[in-house]
Amino acid sequence: MKIAVLGCGTVGSGVVDILDEKKELMVKSAGEEISVKYILDIRDFTGSPYESRIVKDIDIIAEDEEIGCVVETMGGVEPAFTFCKKCLSKGKSVVTSNKALVAAKAQELFKTARENNAAFMFEAAVCGGIPVIRTMFSALSANNILSFSGILNGTTNFILTKMIDEKMSFDTALKIAQEKGYAEKDPTADVDGLDAGRKTCILASIAYGSHVYPEEIHTEGIRNITLEDAAYAANAGCRIKLLGKAHKLNNGKIGAIVCPFLVNTSSLISDVNGVYNAISITGDSIGDVLLYGQGAGKEATASAVTGDVMECVRLKKNEKHYFWEEHKDNVLEDYMLYETALFVRGYAKNKEDSLINIREAFGGVRVIEREDAPSNEIAFITGRAAEKELRDILSELRDFAPASVIRMLD
Amino acid sequence: MKIAVLGCGTVGSGVVDILDEKKELMVKSAGEEISVKYILDIRDFTGSPYESRIVKDIDIIAEDEEIGCVVETMGGVEPAFTFCKKCLSKGKSVVTSNKALVAAKAQELFKTARENNAAFMFEAAVCGGIPVIRTMFSALSANNILSFSGILNGTTNFILTKMIDEKMSFDTALKIAQEKGYAEKDPTADVDGLDAGRKTCILASIAYGSHVYPEEIHTEGIRNITLEDAAYAANAGCRIKLLGKAHKLNNGKIGAIVCPFLVNTSSLISDVNGVYNAISITGDSIGDVLLYGQGAGKEATASAVTGDVMECVRLKKNEKHYFWEEHKDNVLEDYMLYETALFVRGYAKNKEDSLINIREAFGGVRVIEREDAPSNEIAFITGRAAEKELRDILSELRDFAPASVIRMLD
Repeated sequence: MKIAVLGCGTVGSGVVDILDEKKELMVKSAGEEISVKYILDIRDFTGSPYESRIVKDIDIIAEDEEIGCVVETMGGVEPAFTFCKKCLSKGKSVVTSNKALVAAKAQELFKTARENNAAFMFEAAVCGGIPVIRTMFSALSANNILSFSGILNGTTNFILTKMIDEKMSFDTALKIAQEKGYAEKDPTADVDGLDAGRKTCILASIAYGSHVYPEEIHTEGIRNITLEDAAYAANAGCRIKLLGKAHKLNNGKIGAIVCPFLVNTSSLISDVNGVYNAISITGDSIGDVLLYGQGAGKEATASAVTGDVMECVRLKKNEKHYFWEEHKDNVLEDYMLYETALFVRGYAKNKEDSLINIREAFGGVRVIEREDAPSNEIAFITGRAAEKELRDILSELRDFAPASVIRMLD
Repeated sequence: MKIAVLGCGTVGSGVVDILDEKKELMVKSAGEEISVKYILDIRDFTGSPYESRIVKDIDIIAEDEEIGCVVETMGGVEPAFTFCKKCLSKGKSVVTSNKALVAAKAQELFKTARENNAAFMFEAAVCGGIPVIRTMFSALSANNILSFSGILNGTTNFILTKMIDEKMSFDTALKIAQEKGYAEKDPTADVDGLDAGRKTCILASIAYGSHVYPEEIHTEGIRNITLEDAAYAANAGCRIKLLGKAHKLNNGKIGAIVCPFLVNTSSLISDVNGVYNAISITGDSIGDVLLYGQGAGKEATASAVTGDVMECVRLKKNEKHYFWEEHKDNVLEDYMLYETALFVRGYAKNKEDSLINIREAFGGVRVIEREDAPSNEIAFITGRAAEKELRDILSELRDFAPASVIRMLD
């Protein structure tokens, strides 16, 4: 089987290197030799082992009947989408690591793939080295997915770990993440939860069978998390984690949200630190499954892409590839209606009076203390109710100004 | 697709129930309806929903061209092996949850499957609900597996958890495990590590590509673990876990062993408690991946079997199924030659003198203390060396009688 790689950046070059270097393993695992015939890139890579394979025109790849599989590692929706669609329409399978593309266009690409008896695969698009896509599509296929929640972004998990374990401020931790190359110069996509949001959409689309768009999911990042919150969380037996979460509601609709949560330390996911990712999935038959690994990095991501390529080679005559249905309206429930408990930290005019008010308004709360707290600071955890109900009560409290409100993971 | 189930016990009936009850999910995920046409069992199940489908003769199933996939959940090597081979030789795919069968006969069944364009699958045979077989065969296929280590037996993990967290003796914890149905009346297969040994073989066969037999792997159970060992382990920042482990050695051979290890609490696998299982795998590209979930139980295991059935349905025209090569001699290295550090607990004639001797003999050790230890008890952790070397030094120590020797996980 001959393949083409679109975009020879960090991940793309990693894929070419694995396929160039592990010839024997490929034959053993996939049953035949796999070689990279073309690399599409705007650069020339003069003097590199890539040089002789560089092409500039997607049609050379799309029209070459020898090419059975195309790897897309360009990133961004365009021109990746146009290129992938063109290759699929020629019956070539496409493997991508591009989560923006999958989150925005998977359904259309699935359809083109199906019409042309090709596969569209994207294990590397969600949490690089963790085999979550395969697991949800295949190993858990006999389950109705009741819920999943995941640490889907390594950069924010690195920052939160530094804040919690080393009492570092958000700004300092972000700076270190940037120095280490974990965070971009403009860290918006990571720290505001957009990256985790795209991955949550992809997982929710698999779990619930129809396309979910990032714009539909309420998304909060970690910019507002403070060391005070981390200290209170620790005293409540919790760690703060940015999670992408989805669950089936009693009314049949889907709840999906990306935001920081207080996670009990008895939960394995609370111990997932640094740039590592993890996803906990609950199925109605299988119970809880947790997958843990590197969510990013050249080699882990390239390994996941190559695993998909080998699957395409193994399964090339197969007609039933992964799929989900078109987007459906009214599948997602308004996040304000999900049941949750809230952690609240704020400042009172008079602490004693406020505590009486708060207890009365919420029908009881769990008050948390921390060392060296200002005398007018109050922190507490409410009971479980629809978030809107809790927020309404909170907004009606007099002489108490909330500074942080963080959801509790069930 | 119509299927047959051989053996309608706990797992088999679970599979029939899922296939009977989740018709819609099957069509959505596998692309067509899947129904159970035959159930082979010596019982009649009079009055049950199984009754009309009960058959007593494997040939009815093997000769029925409508049957595309056969589920084997009888357990034991025979007659399961004969039945599976017969069905495979008729071109029917076989899915099994039977680890004894896979550990003893997988290679022969793979061969028959390949010759007849059928699949032989066994996700449920190792750690029930955890998708480790798929992950190793498929998601990690672009990796050379450097090592894996797993909590592969829920019963022993339950017992060790009770011993460590509740200071319960081995005998008491075993009794509770038996009362809860986690352990058999004769607990040998679990507590002596035989069950974990079979699973270690299966995983090693996938990781290293040729059949590994249980008899080849040094196997120790947990009968000799004491509360004293657990207390010292805690003071050394570790928890005791029964692990199945394999790793690639520098000389190209494979190391494989099943035994208790002291696992550092900084490692996620040390937090896997109760009947849960987990496997940590290190690949040369992907780095560390950890999979966690229920290793047994009717529903989790039946869910894994059904996931394989759905994969068979999806992939029925595919010719390249999972496979490993025949057994090769001299692939496994003698476990006495693996590098390791050892935890040693024992009794000295004179503690001060012995500590001087021990330090000198090993070239330095880490001494560990515990509360209420007898005055002549010594516990320490050696540096890393070939196990044989460490054991030789230990056996030459005068006036010191080792009571426990437990390996340290790297």
